[in-house]
Amino acid sequence: MHSVFKLLLLLVVEARVCYSSFDGDTVHDDVESLRGKPLSGSPSNLVALGGSSKWKRKSIVTLALTVLTSSQAILIVWSKRAGKYEYSVTTANFLVEALKCALSLAALARIWRTEGVTEDNRLRTTLDEVSVYPIPAALYLVKNLLQYYIFAYVDAPGYQILKNLNIISTGVLYRIILKKKLSETQWAAFILLCAGCTTAQLKSNSDRVLQTPFQGWLMAIIMALLSGFAGVYTEAIIKKRPSRNINVQNFWLYVFGMVFNAVVILVQDFDAVINKGFFHGYTLITFLMILNHALSGIAVSMVMKYADNIVKVYSTSVAMLLTAVVSVFLFGFHLSLAFFLGSTVVSVSVYLHSIGKIQR
Amino acid sequence: MHSVFKLLLLLVVEARVCYSSFDGDTVHDDVESLRGKPLSGSPSNLVALGGSSKWKRKSIVTLALTVLTSSQAILIVWSKRAGKYEYSVTTANFLVEALKCALSLAALARIWRTEGVTEDNRLRTTLDEVSVYPIPAALYLVKNLLQYYIFAYVDAPGYQILKNLNIISTGVLYRIILKKKLSETQWAAFILLCAGCTTAQLKSNSDRVLQTPFQGWLMAIIMALLSGFAGVYTEAIIKKRPSRNINVQNFWLYVFGMVFNAVVILVQDFDAVINKGFFHGYTLITFLMILNHALSGIAVSMVMKYADNIVKVYSTSVAMLLTAVVSVFLFGFHLSLAFFLGSTVVSVSVYLHSIGKIQR
Repeated sequence: MHSVFKLLLLLVVEARVCYSSFDGDTVHDDVESLRGKPLSGSPSNLVALGGSSKWKRKSIVTLALTVLTSSQAILIVWSKRAGKYEYSVTTANFLVEALKCALSLAALARIWRTEGVTEDNRLRTTLDEVSVYPIPAALYLVKNLLQYYIFAYVDAPGYQILKNLNIISTGVLYRIILKKKLSETQWAAFILLCAGCTTAQLKSNSDRVLQTPFQGWLMAIIMALLSGFAGVYTEAIIKKRPSRNINVQNFWLYVFGMVFNAVVILVQDFDAVINKGFFHGYTLITFLMILNHALSGIAVSMVMKYADNIVKVYSTSVAMLLTAVVSVFLFGFHLSLAFFLGSTVVSVSVYLHSIGKIQR
Repeated sequence: MHSVFKLLLLLVVEARVCYSSFDGDTVHDDVESLRGKPLSGSPSNLVALGGSSKWKRKSIVTLALTVLTSSQAILIVWSKRAGKYEYSVTTANFLVEALKCALSLAALARIWRTEGVTEDNRLRTTLDEVSVYPIPAALYLVKNLLQYYIFAYVDAPGYQILKNLNIISTGVLYRIILKKKLSETQWAAFILLCAGCTTAQLKSNSDRVLQTPFQGWLMAIIMALLSGFAGVYTEAIIKKRPSRNINVQNFWLYVFGMVFNAVVILVQDFDAVINKGFFHGYTLITFLMILNHALSGIAVSMVMKYADNIVKVYSTSVAMLLTAVVSVFLFGFHLSLAFFLGSTVVSVSVYLHSIGKIQR
């Protein structure tokens, strides 16, 4: 009961973090407060609850990721309802990276003011430290390029189904690259997470995915491996220097994200940007989506720093289910029997993952 | 690896039991050999494998139940393909009970010849012992009567889906009535078994079951409870006297089965039987189905004696999946994505049930 109460309180705090995050300036306040310093205002009551600050930080970043990911999917549905995307996706992706960079810098500026510049929070870096930072961004770039080609073999709903292979690839690469062990129960839970998420997404035409040609499966598996590898590699980079400030680590990750995305604009959308302008077709919802993606990205980094890729996968999977439930109220969606069954399996998976940890 | 090898060997033995069981006389040979005496012929090699005889007996009865249940479903599909049922289902049910009685008596006769009549294997019983034996048969009767009424609220595919509630009701009643504990992992596995079986059965029109009116749900739950209670109560009766010969226990169970089914014939099909004859519309496949049901019934009793209701539920669930796979080869059925996902969940459930036991 105690832990349920704690979780509810955290959800309330989290809601505060999320609402306040929409007026730019307070965002890095919250981002910074995640660094384990006493929280200002109401959240400081949490300290009295007696949970370790590590547990608290981990829970807050996980919940932030879950809530941000769910609202991300809801924004996408909302924007689709409002009409076709008119803006260029490449410029939006670039802005997401730029905003993440700016938020990291703003958080750092605040830290420098209060703590002064130290070895751990200075922006200056060595070639040895920074040389690995472009790798995740490059991997995501290759994955995103492949995404254009896979649609020759699979339709969009089929691709959504195949994307669940990410769960398995992340688990396997997490084990191989980070050499962290999962218990037997946790492996079982991971397979269930993949099966449950896929079940929850089943539509009447999902069986078509079984007719995917060999090339389609191969590309789906390669994409899952690229995505899993990028995630696990990011965790490896961030965890390699535990005392290094996460905002500095983020800054360098996002700088390379900006560079790669700038290259994509030049290659794909140069003419459109020159003729119609960079912000052509942008609406309020576009900016909200950019803000949301930026905050989600920061939340992912935080989860990598204070938790791990496994937590990230669980968090985004639960977010997928949350999105569906919220969509029932927002858009009058109907939940299918498959969704209930899939959600049950995912819930049991979350439970098994947690009891699997104790037995380890 | 050793246990996988053992399992494969058992499957071979099992195939022998099943094939031989079709020529009446050898059936009770095999039924009797389950009583833990050294097996004659090739199965005796199993002793050299060094498994305990208790484990061996449990595995053999479980596999027998699985194989018989799968072939049962396949016979039903086969008979449907051959045309509509022309025979009266009530007379067939009576014959199943009568055949089970006869097989139990034949097995007993053999035991009396070799071991002589003892306190444990004599047919004579006390009112105290026999008074509880009609209860499971009565419960099944009520459940079967309800079955006619539930179709006012649910269609046949919906009923197949709702029948999976049996899994949960059996687990809950097993815990309450037999006071046997399942570990946390095993409870999780049981929920997964139910979700997995339902997922595997999903069809494009399965969502209609969500529109089932309240009365339909209520009847489905009552039927699941009746069925679960009958199963758990049978286990309680059989296990109450562990030294009592299972064939005697079966004989008394089946005698009451015969009585209740005779009453059903009188009430429902009296005119048809008088006018058209008892065996009207019987074909070779009808007799095969009766034989199969009788053997499955005996296998269920054996599982109750040497294993438990949980094993029974797992066995029949795995049989359901086996049936679907075999139907692909026999009838050219297509397996759906839902079937693959459901089977994955059921497989993980079986695994978790087995590791859950060790941790208990």
